[in-house]
Amino acid sequence: MSARAGVVVTGTEVLTGIIGDRNGPWLSERLREVGVDHAHTAIVGDRPEDVRAALDFFAQQGMDLVVTSGGLGPTEDDLTARVVADFAGRRFVLDDALEGRIAVILERLTKRWPDLDMDAIRAGNRKQAHVPEGAEILEPVGTAPGFVVAADGPTVVVLPGPPRELQPMWEAAAATEGFRAAVAGATEYRSRMMRLFGIPESEIAETLRVARAEGVALDALEVTTCLRRGEIEIATRYEPPQEAVYEAFTGIVRARHADTLFSEDGTTIDEQVAALLRERESTIAVAESCTGGLMAARLTDLAGSSDYFMGGLVVYSDEAKVALAGVDPSLVARVGAVSTEVAEALADGAHERLHADVGVGITGVAGPGGGTEEKPVGTVCFSVVDSGSGRRLTRRVQLPGARADVRDRSTAVALHMVRRVVLGDSD
Amino acid sequence: MSARAGVVVTGTEVLTGIIGDRNGPWLSERLREVGVDHAHTAIVGDRPEDVRAALDFFAQQGMDLVVTSGGLGPTEDDLTARVVADFAGRRFVLDDALEGRIAVILERLTKRWPDLDMDAIRAGNRKQAHVPEGAEILEPVGTAPGFVVAADGPTVVVLPGPPRELQPMWEAAAATEGFRAAVAGATEYRSRMMRLFGIPESEIAETLRVARAEGVALDALEVTTCLRRGEIEIATRYEPPQEAVYEAFTGIVRARHADTLFSEDGTTIDEQVAALLRERESTIAVAESCTGGLMAARLTDLAGSSDYFMGGLVVYSDEAKVALAGVDPSLVARVGAVSTEVAEALADGAHERLHADVGVGITGVAGPGGGTEEKPVGTVCFSVVDSGSGRRLTRRVQLPGARADVRDRSTAVALHMVRRVVLGDSD
Repeated sequence: MSARAGVVVTGTEVLTGIIGDRNGPWLSERLREVGVDHAHTAIVGDRPEDVRAALDFFAQQGMDLVVTSGGLGPTEDDLTARVVADFAGRRFVLDDALEGRIAVILERLTKRWPDLDMDAIRAGNRKQAHVPEGAEILEPVGTAPGFVVAADGPTVVVLPGPPRELQPMWEAAAATEGFRAAVAGATEYRSRMMRLFGIPESEIAETLRVARAEGVALDALEVTTCLRRGEIEIATRYEPPQEAVYEAFTGIVRARHADTLFSEDGTTIDEQVAALLRERESTIAVAESCTGGLMAARLTDLAGSSDYFMGGLVVYSDEAKVALAGVDPSLVARVGAVSTEVAEALADGAHERLHADVGVGITGVAGPGGGTEEKPVGTVCFSVVDSGSGRRLTRRVQLPGARADVRDRSTAVALHMVRRVVLGDSD
Repeated sequence: MSARAGVVVTGTEVLTGIIGDRNGPWLSERLREVGVDHAHTAIVGDRPEDVRAALDFFAQQGMDLVVTSGGLGPTEDDLTARVVADFAGRRFVLDDALEGRIAVILERLTKRWPDLDMDAIRAGNRKQAHVPEGAEILEPVGTAPGFVVAADGPTVVVLPGPPRELQPMWEAAAATEGFRAAVAGATEYRSRMMRLFGIPESEIAETLRVARAEGVALDALEVTTCLRRGEIEIATRYEPPQEAVYEAFTGIVRARHADTLFSEDGTTIDEQVAALLRERESTIAVAESCTGGLMAARLTDLAGSSDYFMGGLVVYSDEAKVALAGVDPSLVARVGAVSTEVAEALADGAHERLHADVGVGITGVAGPGGGTEEKPVGTVCFSVVDSGSGRRLTRRVQLPGARADVRDRSTAVALHMVRRVVLGDSD
């Protein structure tokens, strides 16, 4: 029997989407790693009664552990610590030593700011040093301490909202006595991920039916399929004795989708392209129009990308396409900026101007304006060339969705084309 | 008394962060617009008992309305419709006419794919045409219909997960009899947003205390402050008769933070920069290193950006800085690529090479590698120049966080510098 956990993400700004939540998913992964079954994330506003209702709900659901993020700041609307103290039936007390340790941190931080109101700083400091009596304290990474406290029901882990504070504090939380007692006896799970590119989700549904029909005990696996950025992700979780069932399942996916299954080990297309370029000591450069820098940004997202990424040209205007990427202006005049011919010229310009082995060209209509009957919004042309071997793939694709979707999907299509060219494909 | 709503976002892939949730925040805004109080978003995995527990929780909380997103696809793990039927105590029935309408959509879509398994398609079609008896149907935008059904307690609005399907279906949902009955008598609220750049959150906490001390009835307002990307956001919600209280509050913020308050109407720095460039008929170009294309991508994120964005140079390598942006190689050798001098040369190169009015140069150490004692990870140098007037701002900044944070924050700092230069500031 697996220990069960709920996550409470607090903050009206998260609930209403002013900021996106990164903590719920991150905590979900960490809980899974320690064998805890995470079934539910509650996102609630900054009202104490709503935070309390979420805690009560998780207690009522029989959760062993509840992890909260947010609501530990110096301002008046940050109230998680007090609500958790009430929930755990503890007094809410000032920890003098903690107040002193926070003061040391604040002294260092406030040097950066001239003319600060020191009364405000001290009031915030004191507010952040209040914790439920008897809680195990987690030292602050920013200025907010966290804590772990056992309630009548779940044990509650209280962490600050900013991911760069929450994440380093997780290890300390997981090492507390309260945490370890709450998750004792958790079942170990394995998580596996396959990724496919270029088929509709219904095909995977049929593959699941086929696997069942062929006697694969799919009920022993927890399979989730998801369509994202044009890729299908098949996430599977199972207990270690079910390894053979998972192997049988992957065998069937492999046999039915050999041409579209690109990842059996969960690696992303970004990681695969980076590894392939490193392995072959190839360099890459891009000349992109409708994606406006997103392709370069995606290629430089991974640390160490300077080993293979030479640079990028964001050639939004036709003048820039000509001046920076060396596209023939008469070609643009003849076939239009959104064309496979211009995509090829951009790919050539990218690798030539930036002295890279692989060149990528992207040009399209991201919308909402600029579409025509012949080239509606979502029309995007791609070319990828490997200058050493002369291999090239060029495609014109019609992508669904709004401006942001078209731009994002375009980077996915281009990355998959880079992978294929580097692996040896060519038109 | 305001109608209250809960949102249930289903999907193990959302819970575990394989995909980020865009529906919870979007629905929150829509609910707020129609005066419904949205207090809680529940993110649950694809297990029927977890979806049901969330519905029961919201019923128990006395919600008038529950909106669900996701779990309406053609695959076996998409089970929201059935769970909602049980929750509402309705039979789960095949709607023949709906099955026919979905079939027409599928016929159009499947033309794109060769060699499809039509049995799989038909099975998915039939699955998606099952709805609770008596529900009001929402016609599909993709292939999944939604519906609105009254339960013993809240009315439930069931929508598909993909935002580009969910969003267009919202209007139909809000027009149903079930929806209108559930939200009847909702209080109207006003939502306002102020944004500040360049002060710590504790200063806002103090401003709230000052406002109270000066007699502003802050309890009549629902004020949320949030630190995000180096900006402070003050979101406030109130009932229309409290307009004067809000005015008094903004007056105090304005007086205390004149130099850092850049938005009183909720406009983002991105929108302000775009509007300023349009207004002055200025064009802009960037040469960026550590941000790797993100600055160009951010400037082209808004539709119509081709009116002012000329292009970008992603000069990741030193060779690219020299060859593309015309940076003097002896300068790089003398002061290093991460320096205010090279940032200035990049800004100059950007506007010269791309024939733009405003040039932006960014160079820094995004990490995790590459830091030195003198230039640790997070050191980023910026320069923004307006070539017509010769106004220029150049800054060296130490940004906190990991690689992704440093890259993201850098684009925010650069945008604020562009705003200031266009508005007339100069070193």
